[in-house]
Amino acid sequence: MKVLLFAGSLRKDSLNKKLVSVANQILQDSNIETTVVDLQPLEFPVYDADIEAKGIPLNVQMLSQFVNEADAVIISSPEYNGSISSPLKNTLDWLSRTKPMNLAKKQVLLLGASPGELGAMRGLLHSKIPFEAMGNFVYPRVYGLPKADQAFGENNKLVDPKRQENLAKLVSEFIEHCKNFN
Amino acid sequence: MKVLLFAGSLRKDSLNKKLVSVANQILQDSNIETTVVDLQPLEFPVYDADIEAKGIPLNVQMLSQFVNEADAVIISSPEYNGSISSPLKNTLDWLSRTKPMNLAKKQVLLLGASPGELGAMRGLLHSKIPFEAMGNFVYPRVYGLPKADQAFGENNKLVDPKRQENLAKLVSEFIEHCKNFN
Amino acid sequence: MKVLLFAGSLRKDSLNKKLVSVANQILQDSNIETTVVDLQPLEFPVYDADIEAKGIPLNVQMLSQFVNEADAVIISSPEYNGSISSPLKNTLDWLSRTKPMNLAKKQVLLLGASPGELGAMRGLLHSKIPFEAMGNFVYPRVYGLPKADQAFGENNKLVDPKRQENLAKLVSEFIEHCKNFN
Amino acid sequence: MKVLLFAGSLRKDSLNKKLVSVANQILQDSNIETTVVDLQPLEFPVYDADIEAKGIPLNVQMLSQFVNEADAVIISSPEYNGSISSPLKNTLDWLSRTKPMNLAKKQVLLLGASPGELGAMRGLLHSKIPFEAMGNFVYPRVYGLPKADQAFGENNKLVDPKRQENLAKLVSEFIEHCKNFN
Repeated sequence: MKVLLFAGSLRKDSLNKKLVSVANQILQDSNIETTVVDLQPLEFPVYDADIEAKGIPLNVQMLSQFVNEADAVIISSPEYNGSISSPLKNTLDWLSRTKPMNLAKKQVLLLGASPGELGAMRGLLHSKIPFEAMGNFVYPRVYGLPKADQAFGENNKLVDPKRQENLAKLVSEFIEHCKNFN
Repeated sequence: MKVLLFAGSLRKDSLNKKLVSVANQILQDSNIETTVVDLQPLEFPVYDADIEAKGIPLNVQMLSQFVNEADAVIISSPEYNGSISSPLKNTLDWLSRTKPMNLAKKQVLLLGASPGELGAMRGLLHSKIPFEAMGNFVYPRVYGLPKADQAFGENNKLVDPKRQENLAKLVSEFIEHCKNFN
Repeated sequence: MKVLLFAGSLRKDSLNKKLVSVANQILQDSNIETTVVDLQPLEFPVYDADIEAKGIPLNVQMLSQFVNEADAVIISSPEYNGSISSPLKNTLDWLSRTKPMNLAKKQVLLLGASPGELGAMRGLLHSKIPFEAMGNFVYPRVYGLPKADQAFGENNKLVDPKRQENLAKLVSEFIEHCKNFN
Repeated sequence: MKVLLFAGSLRKDSLNKKLVSVANQILQDSNIETTVVDLQPLEFPVYDADIEAKGIPLNVQMLSQFVNEADAVIISSPEYNGSISSPLKNTLDWLSRTKPMNLAKKQVLLLGASPGELGAMRGLLHSKIPFEAMGNFVYPRVYGLPKADQAFGENNKLVDPKRQENLAKLVSEFIEHCKNFN
């Protein structure tokens, strides 16, 4: 079992990158192999078919290859304007153009962190749609972390032990589910 | 009354840019002032708060100014992976960061062209969400143009007179609706 | 200006019926004429075209008439299973079958009360879709009341003065918006 | 492997009941055990917590038992007002109240028939939400049958052999997928 993780935001201090680290730690503590990708240095352009006609950017092809090697994908993404973040949508639109199109029939778990009270929940619901349209299996339960600016402690753990436990439980449940497909 | 129009895709030969031209022609034939913007040469980067911290790109600020001067906005956008196109989402995410945030309380009409049979309909429904989250009034009727690769004729008109009439009717209905707010 | 209000749940002690009462009080304090309908005693059957073929239930026709007489509609509805409540969906499906179909081109404001932390927010977003498909103008801002089991005080007011103020502000803003159409 | 099938509409001549029959035939031709339920004679009331307080209707409990015995569920549902049908939503809301709540962690395939050109597609997308909120695994591909009033032939088959083949292929693909969980 190999899991690919990335955040749907770009900035260095992204709360969602921190939530990716927490999820990654949970997986590593269970001896599950992981790959964590940071989208910022990949510098994808906004999807443009005229760019594509000259060749899909190499960094997109590399990410597609990482997707190919993974059995499951865990994404933590912010909510921008009540909906999917543009960095995540743009990444999906580029990945959908690679051949082979590896982001299909993958097990996907969506997480989200937000400084607000709703924990990126509206964004997560909106983000499901393209994954499913591409033929992936989005796990029906999602995890939204509210007030995320105060949520992260040391050692890649959430400050609140109850929340840490809930997240660890969801991640394990998801991994158990994924094992059905191996 | 002034209307801003743009397409939610970047490539030069975009079907949605053609549909924008048809809508623009309908407005001009009714002596309504319009501004048509092409997003491709504006070259917005993917939204990144680290870029924003150094200053919102000038082209974003310019588009925000065009939005400010318009009473209504008409957008024709493709469907990418059953959902909002990344160029459109990225444009909205950038516009939401300008101060003043001009893309609020605007009347918005969504159109979509697609070579497929559903006419970008799923994308239009998905695209409504961020506009509404930003506080705009999205007109409840949308217009999806199926089989758009064969739909465009000469003089900025649709080949099928019935479709041309339907589009013109929707655009007029929308403009009448917008007049309530002047 | 006349406003019709009803709740999207049936039970007598419904939190959403209480939120309807609070909204109604706000309107009456501004001397706006209102009609409040309780769906429970109307006893609509689940929509069935075989029932419709024998005649649309009289109570549906009566509600449609109330809709016709109103300039705006305010609905407070719970979230059932992350989505629109069945009493609300069923009411809309019946109303859509009346002739004339009065629930079109109406200004609609959606509220929601829930004992949970998200305040019925997912349900409100899901509930927008049928209203818009029927051609109504759903106000882009919605109001979700979390922890609603502890939220209601005396005299049709919310216990928390800040929340009462926010709700009153949204309702006024909506009424001002509706005046554009008179 | 046992599959439960039902339609999300009530009337006797429902196009979606016909599509259920076609899907059922495909399953039976592959020697898969099925149960087909017709919701009309079950006469569920609209969900009302005051009714529930007196006891969940026996017919709801019976359907919940059928769900319990099934490994997978196939539903064909119309689109009412661009969204989930009220008979389907009401059925889900009742099923969610049974104890044990059997409609969870089930594999679900959504089909839809419609006399229109979009084949109930918007309704299917909208219908996914409550199934997923209840914790089910909705198969990412759905099947919409447009112009369904002319689509049904003899022997529980679609007139158009291409469409019959596509549906049979999707159903087999879904069944193969479900086998992962046995």
